Amino acid sequence: MTEQPRWPLEGVKVLDLGQIYNGPYAGFLLAHAGADVVKIEPLGGEVLRKRGGLGVPFSLTMLNTNKRGLAIDLKHPDGKQLLKDLVKEADILLENFAPGAMDRLGLGADVLLKENPRLIYGSSSGYGLSGPDKDNLAMDLTVQAIGGVMSINGPEDGPPLKAGLAVCDFAGGVHLYAAIMTALFERSVTGKGRVVEVAMQEAVYPILTSNITSLHRNGWKHPERRGNRHPTNGSAPYNVYQCADGHVAIICVQEAHWQNLCDLMGRPELKEDPRLETQALRAEHEDIVDEAVEAWTRTLPKAEAARLMRENRVPAAQVRNLEEVTADPHMHERGMLHDIDHPEMGKVVLPASPLRFHGSPDPSIQLEPAVGANTDDVLKEWLDMDDAAVSNLRESKAVG
Amino acid sequence: MTEQPRWPLEGVKVLDLGQIYNGPYAGFLLAHAGADVVKIEPLGGEVLRKRGGLGVPFSLTMLNTNKRGLAIDLKHPDGKQLLKDLVKEADILLENFAPGAMDRLGLGADVLLKENPRLIYGSSSGYGLSGPDKDNLAMDLTVQAIGGVMSINGPEDGPPLKAGLAVCDFAGGVHLYAAIMTALFERSVTGKGRVVEVAMQEAVYPILTSNITSLHRNGWKHPERRGNRHPTNGSAPYNVYQCADGHVAIICVQEAHWQNLCDLMGRPELKEDPRLETQALRAEHEDIVDEAVEAWTRTLPKAEAARLMRENRVPAAQVRNLEEVTADPHMHERGMLHDIDHPEMGKVVLPASPLRFHGSPDPSIQLEPAVGANTDDVLKEWLDMDDAAVSNLRESKAVG
Repeated sequence: MTEQPRWPLEGVKVLDLGQIYNGPYAGFLLAHAGADVVKIEPLGGEVLRKRGGLGVPFSLTMLNTNKRGLAIDLKHPDGKQLLKDLVKEADILLENFAPGAMDRLGLGADVLLKENPRLIYGSSSGYGLSGPDKDNLAMDLTVQAIGGVMSINGPEDGPPLKAGLAVCDFAGGVHLYAAIMTALFERSVTGKGRVVEVAMQEAVYPILTSNITSLHRNGWKHPERRGNRHPTNGSAPYNVYQCADGHVAIICVQEAHWQNLCDLMGRPELKEDPRLETQALRAEHEDIVDEAVEAWTRTLPKAEAARLMRENRVPAAQVRNLEEVTADPHMHERGMLHDIDHPEMGKVVLPASPLRFHGSPDPSIQLEPAVGANTDDVLKEWLDMDDAAVSNLRESKAVG
Repeated sequence: MTEQPRWPLEGVKVLDLGQIYNGPYAGFLLAHAGADVVKIEPLGGEVLRKRGGLGVPFSLTMLNTNKRGLAIDLKHPDGKQLLKDLVKEADILLENFAPGAMDRLGLGADVLLKENPRLIYGSSSGYGLSGPDKDNLAMDLTVQAIGGVMSINGPEDGPPLKAGLAVCDFAGGVHLYAAIMTALFERSVTGKGRVVEVAMQEAVYPILTSNITSLHRNGWKHPERRGNRHPTNGSAPYNVYQCADGHVAIICVQEAHWQNLCDLMGRPELKEDPRLETQALRAEHEDIVDEAVEAWTRTLPKAEAARLMRENRVPAAQVRNLEEVTADPHMHERGMLHDIDHPEMGKVVLPASPLRFHGSPDPSIQLEPAVGANTDDVLKEWLDMDDAAVSNLRESKAVG
């Protein structure tokens, strides 16, 4: 009862070779669960650093808090040896290079697992480490295209549309974390490490469950884009409605929700309308439903409409922009979002982890490391190197 | 070297009280990693079963393969006691009811952790178990609204648009799995269980990294919807282009990509165009870039355009519909997708897990359980009950 609060991954050592979003997000979850995550970058920094124009891109900051920085040239013979030495001390190595990139460096999973059979080697890529498509170039945009996301996103009368958020990259990253944790748990039973892998295309597939259900239900015709409406035309109200000053989303999945809404709108007679008596009938007559609902929402500010529905137990939410989201009092109170002064960027809002462990300390945020910011500390702590050894490596440009 | 292939979660026992998408997806990942996952439903079945019209909805099948079925009435005193008895044998219990629902049943986390201090109790909800918004009704649609997803999805000139895939539900589900695994690993160190929780709104937040970056970069004005273009206007070509028979997505993030594309299009002079010399300049002149690229893609079928770009190392992919995705030879070859005859639905395509563990057996799929399909087996195996004891429970309608 009076135990010290503890992070679940205290003592776990991670080499995070991730770049851009996918790998770094897996490393972010590890770092925020208490692991010692060392972000390994080339001496010039990872590719995302170049995207900021001058200065650090905010995206790099957001995904690399609570990590330490170590710069290694993995093409340098001493750099390769150094990575192997670090692997001997590590529990986890993760990367999201193109398949085969680590092998070409002589640092593939088979080599590293020979150095340390307890290592969990985690790899994420667009299409995975096997199969005919494995070498196709993959970014979030292309995986959204080939993975079917675009085909079901967008207005009913428009062309395929990219989802506005990088769902494939992050589906890859969180599934990579999940796979790594699974293998780490297994190691506590077997004593052995493993290679685990995640393909972005496969990680996004389950997220299409509603849409794939519609495909199966409709005789293998692919579902149309449905704009803001229900993907399988299974429910109404289910839409985004214009308010006096913005929009509100409303979804009624139980009879009580619809009945509450009719009363709230001052339209009790709709409860008796035979065209709208069941969920299936309302879905069939979604135009009638949507017109009645929007006639009401247009008269109200979005916050007021949302408040009224909350109080009357109708599932609804205002559509917020990202300025409103980053200022959300609820997420700030929960310790998910933090206002922080960044030395280069000024005021920023940074997230903690969505993984919440009751009984752990309150979330806290340490800013992202500069390239190689902790090279000395990590080499001394992990490998017992002295100043001279580190200096030699730095002079030979194996580390930075 | 000649060890038996093994699933990482062999021997792990899970009570999956999930419903609809979020919780069941966490249970799906557990089941496909080798855990004994018992899907617990009320005697009438979970809420998703009612969405199929007649028969099982495909979505329920897709997310509940490799689980066993146990029907318990948790409002029945004997049902409550039975759940406590099962918890004593379990490693993990997961649920995605509204916050407080399990407490109102007398089966809250504190009660269950008292029964079994080694239990990992995993909860996922829209807004989490604390904070002012915790009791707001949450579905994927409303969390997309309030979480900012809609604000950045859609054509540039249109209203906020729901992302066509249930990104908040599934972000919740996979993060819940991730949190559970983290605590399960920790238990191997501390011997103790924990409550872990995930809020859908928080799980989707990091997926908005590009968009939140744009917000920070642009003086806290919220980013416009950008249709198929780059969310921060950082790159071109970055778009979806019309082909003779569909669409292709193209993204050039290195100079070589752009130069390869110019050559492939038969437009080498564009490489020398001073307006298009750098990534930043091409982004600034994205209309010129897009016009040149689409003039070329319009002349080709999408598969041909994608093949030519693949061979010339330009990152690109055809836009596929879900019929094409579910037939993908690559994912079938990798064992991610399986053609299966479903007794009610006929031919269906079912996924294995995106989590891939090298050295484990090949993925295989057992169809979803009917409500209470394995009640007898589970009670006998987990609790050593005899036929009479199970019959008594069934007669009193505590189980089904």
